[in-house]
Amino acid sequence: MTYRVRFRPDEIEVNADGTETLVTLAARAGITLRGACGGAGTCGRCQVEIKEGKVRVGDVTVGAPLHVPACQAKPAADLEVEIPPSSRLEEHRVLLAARAAAVLGEEAETFVPDGPLYRRVSLQLPSPSLEDPADDLSRLLRGLKAHLPGDARVPLDVLRTLPSVLRTGNWRISVGYVIGDESEAAEVVDVACAEAAAPYGLAIDVGTTTVAVELWDLAACRRAAAAGSYNRQAAFGEDVIARIIYATEQPAGLRTLQDAVVKTVNELIRQVLGEAGVEPDAVGAVTCAGNTTMVHLLLGVDPTYIRLEPYTPAANRWPLLQARNLGLAVNPRAKVYIVPGVASYVGGDITAGIVAAGVNRKEGITLFVDIGTNGEMVLGNRDWLMACACSAGPAFEGGGIRAGVRAVPGAIEEVAVLPGGYEVFFRTIGDRPPSGICGSGLISVLAGLAHAGVVDRSGRFRKDLQTPRFREGEDGPEFVIAWENETTSGKAISLSQAEIENLLRAKAAIFAGIRTMLGSLGLALDSVKEIYLAGGFGQHINIKDAVSIGMLPDLPPERYHFTGNSALKGAAAALLSQTARREMTAVARSMTHLELSVDNRFMEEFTAALFLPHTDMDLFPSVKGVS
Amino acid sequence: MTYRVRFRPDEIEVNADGTETLVTLAARAGITLRGACGGAGTCGRCQVEIKEGKVRVGDVTVGAPLHVPACQAKPAADLEVEIPPSSRLEEHRVLLAARAAAVLGEEAETFVPDGPLYRRVSLQLPSPSLEDPADDLSRLLRGLKAHLPGDARVPLDVLRTLPSVLRTGNWRISVGYVIGDESEAAEVVDVACAEAAAPYGLAIDVGTTTVAVELWDLAACRRAAAAGSYNRQAAFGEDVIARIIYATEQPAGLRTLQDAVVKTVNELIRQVLGEAGVEPDAVGAVTCAGNTTMVHLLLGVDPTYIRLEPYTPAANRWPLLQARNLGLAVNPRAKVYIVPGVASYVGGDITAGIVAAGVNRKEGITLFVDIGTNGEMVLGNRDWLMACACSAGPAFEGGGIRAGVRAVPGAIEEVAVLPGGYEVFFRTIGDRPPSGICGSGLISVLAGLAHAGVVDRSGRFRKDLQTPRFREGEDGPEFVIAWENETTSGKAISLSQAEIENLLRAKAAIFAGIRTMLGSLGLALDSVKEIYLAGGFGQHINIKDAVSIGMLPDLPPERYHFTGNSALKGAAAALLSQTARREMTAVARSMTHLELSVDNRFMEEFTAALFLPHTDMDLFPSVKGVS
Repeated sequence: MTYRVRFRPDEIEVNADGTETLVTLAARAGITLRGACGGAGTCGRCQVEIKEGKVRVGDVTVGAPLHVPACQAKPAADLEVEIPPSSRLEEHRVLLAARAAAVLGEEAETFVPDGPLYRRVSLQLPSPSLEDPADDLSRLLRGLKAHLPGDARVPLDVLRTLPSVLRTGNWRISVGYVIGDESEAAEVVDVACAEAAAPYGLAIDVGTTTVAVELWDLAACRRAAAAGSYNRQAAFGEDVIARIIYATEQPAGLRTLQDAVVKTVNELIRQVLGEAGVEPDAVGAVTCAGNTTMVHLLLGVDPTYIRLEPYTPAANRWPLLQARNLGLAVNPRAKVYIVPGVASYVGGDITAGIVAAGVNRKEGITLFVDIGTNGEMVLGNRDWLMACACSAGPAFEGGGIRAGVRAVPGAIEEVAVLPGGYEVFFRTIGDRPPSGICGSGLISVLAGLAHAGVVDRSGRFRKDLQTPRFREGEDGPEFVIAWENETTSGKAISLSQAEIENLLRAKAAIFAGIRTMLGSLGLALDSVKEIYLAGGFGQHINIKDAVSIGMLPDLPPERYHFTGNSALKGAAAALLSQTARREMTAVARSMTHLELSVDNRFMEEFTAALFLPHTDMDLFPSVKGVS
Repeated sequence: MTYRVRFRPDEIEVNADGTETLVTLAARAGITLRGACGGAGTCGRCQVEIKEGKVRVGDVTVGAPLHVPACQAKPAADLEVEIPPSSRLEEHRVLLAARAAAVLGEEAETFVPDGPLYRRVSLQLPSPSLEDPADDLSRLLRGLKAHLPGDARVPLDVLRTLPSVLRTGNWRISVGYVIGDESEAAEVVDVACAEAAAPYGLAIDVGTTTVAVELWDLAACRRAAAAGSYNRQAAFGEDVIARIIYATEQPAGLRTLQDAVVKTVNELIRQVLGEAGVEPDAVGAVTCAGNTTMVHLLLGVDPTYIRLEPYTPAANRWPLLQARNLGLAVNPRAKVYIVPGVASYVGGDITAGIVAAGVNRKEGITLFVDIGTNGEMVLGNRDWLMACACSAGPAFEGGGIRAGVRAVPGAIEEVAVLPGGYEVFFRTIGDRPPSGICGSGLISVLAGLAHAGVVDRSGRFRKDLQTPRFREGEDGPEFVIAWENETTSGKAISLSQAEIENLLRAKAAIFAGIRTMLGSLGLALDSVKEIYLAGGFGQHINIKDAVSIGMLPDLPPERYHFTGNSALKGAAAALLSQTARREMTAVARSMTHLELSVDNRFMEEFTAALFLPHTDMDLFPSVKGVS
């Protein structure tokens, strides 16, 4: 049976055989739906309206009109499906442009370009004669000898056309090659007649939520273009756990997720190449930094065991791959370097960030904090490095918080609460009417509520609150940040007791992780000389708020630094610098990984941190305690 | 325009658009036509009869009935085409079975299996735990450490399923890996749960005329099956030069030739796997020995410059390839080792032969002679090796000789001529009525004619011959070996003066090549302690005849040895023995190549050898001179 499914208001029609969900069918129509639960049907973010026709939900067939999560519905007749803007990921796409700088990194200024991954060299080879009849390959290798330590590997498809290329160019050629690390032979990517185009490379940050791509002119060491967008995988689950579940439990789930991220990456590649006017074939190397799950999904590697104890990935270090292995829209022989990771929840994005921020070169002890769905933390200096990941939960990304939104225009990012909670002042991104609260806003709210005495030190609403903002909501007691008439949706923006507890657990996990690492080494908080806050979220945090709720250590503000997108900076460094690649290998190899989920000390620290700011006020001397 | 072309008597029909020749169309119908001129239309071996319809030959359209070389005719209407048995290559196929032993080698008994190219090892890995959470790849490499010198490379598609394979087998696994040479890391080909099938490998001799395949059980070091057939490329040209011309001058010619040989090889692979009941995936390594042109065509590498001065191939040494690069019908990750060659006309088949015969391990000076289309000769011992190729021309393979046929049943292989040429006795292969004269028969005829005084020392017919066998033929004076009523075709089998001169040039080239190598080193003929005759043709030569016509040196018969198919033996040795692969690398690297085409000494030696047996009778003390 073939059904025709028409998506509105896009008016795009696809054929369906009744076995695929409306999420998959919408994806085929080019429409990416939101989703946070990995297709479990529990998050409700992919809600659509069936205008005409019938769908199957489980074993039941239901007719229009009907509101249904798209991930649960399969066509049982020709359909007309209305997709509301709130269920679309694309809605956010346009908003991204305004904040592209938050996703994209700055130039990887810390690295001298001391050995790009991909290089070109021009050679004038002597033409063969009866006295010197060496074969073409030997002649090429002889010519490369001055530029390379050992013999390069020349892949078969370069050999196939080598004779004509050498002679068409009258033995004046340009050779593009990749050197991964010194222990391996260089590999020739392409041989061109005479002068070829400049060598280009791509640095890619494959994030769970966003993907960013930079195009680099490797000869000039110049960033030629950059672009970022949401990861199309987001339609299949908001966090890595949901993606892994989708990959392992849905038919062809892994393939679907791989296709989604490759499509995202290729769209960005085409965008940067187009902007810079560079041919795909000129790109001879690609570096990717991503968390361990993102790398597995990009490479199409089974991620099942990442989420099951003892949390074992297929690999942390990857061989140098070919672009054709992944279907990237560049020279199919371009080599792909995956920044090595440390463990299932401390991936190559962290390795890249550590090297980009230079933590591994510091003399003083440094703390590197990347807060996202998971909080990943690294402590160390040039002599040692220790990493941990704490399942902070996606609270700061809006997970488990009804009002939670990403840092898009309209998101509340700063809040002030007057004592007693009578009045609330807030600021939104772009000064638009509020649509929700983003991560930095949630920290600000929590700090504000504590400061104003709306919640006590354990985060519970005070019993004696007299403000109308404190009321009984759908989910029990709640505090209103923005009234119904102030918001875009016409619904109030509020936080319930349960949501405040979610935030408390998230902040406690981060601080407990930091303390556990320090404690395992017998170090006090003050031994940390510098703190780097990484990631898109990290750079919007108000440090004072974060310290006042006890999420980050109470250290002098001047010790805090924002790294920006350090994963992308690290990917760019790997593209440009052999030293950076060498350091990444060393960092990933030598970093000690502390598994917090089974650490008793962590559980104790976590419990102690479930207060505002902490049970031990001595740890937060600068914070005025909540009475 | 689409035409329907029906081939008879096969009754197979194909569609044609008028741009392809009947050779190509017949190939598509599964019918391989003979051909010696590379589609030039000059050899007449692919003659077919147009029974109905019209064909275009050049710019002219001609209607049935018509006899035409298939390589010159393109459909201009629906066609009925009759293919006579004499134009088919398949006709020979069935005959081959009877002589398979001649094409196939014996066990490579000279090599201890001291390191098969592909090996399997069973490992019981410790399962991961929170105390030992290493990733799957690290765990695999750790397990392999006891068996390998360094870290193995694990390709992406093995990594993709590694997590589930490891756990399905409960961490008891079997790993197949390939070690090319010691300087390179081993590469994992497959990882299987628990006990996997025995590891198999294929040794392939890719000859210009015939292809032979052996299947080896690499654990038991046992040849499991063998098969041989004609190279389907033969339809596009009889010798390497014709093939190169076809590859470079016909549209998609290289692709056509590559497809033809891959099809040939795959048919044989399926045959040996079927016979032995082995799955394609169990084959993890393939070794190929072939002349330089055959290797280029098998790999799809541009062979243009092999035939143009200064005769430069794309490569003599090849990287270790993957079976999927070539489309071989085995495990797509199986590694393919190409035996390295020395020069455009001294290929990997010679390297393989030298090592199989052990020339590179002998103390005494040894001569290795492989007579085919070209005569390739190697002189040397364990300290030095020198090689040359002489364009003997394909006379001994029947080229330029009307009566020339391959060594198939019915071929005259031995001849005795009574003094004066009155009577001729001959023996055919299989004692069938004669169909022509094969290579060894031509040597025998020439020896017989000289011995009987039919030709003088310069190879010219004596003016005073009184026998009716000496007559004026179509091409001038000729000598009849078999009369019209004795042969299968009803045509006499004879040799003309021009044809005798062709043979004389062919034998002179071989002897002159040997003498030039010896002379360049200041060595006398007698310094050669052993002579190895290689190849299918080599093993049928009557040494006494070959010496008496001055083709091979006049040395004691006990110094002569037949190697059989030494290229195939060498390929098998490379499959089984690391020592053999190491020796092949060393032999190909160190062998001095003497380019005869520009060597004055060779021209002098050649001229001196254009006598029976030679101008210098002192070189042939055992041969009774022709008065």
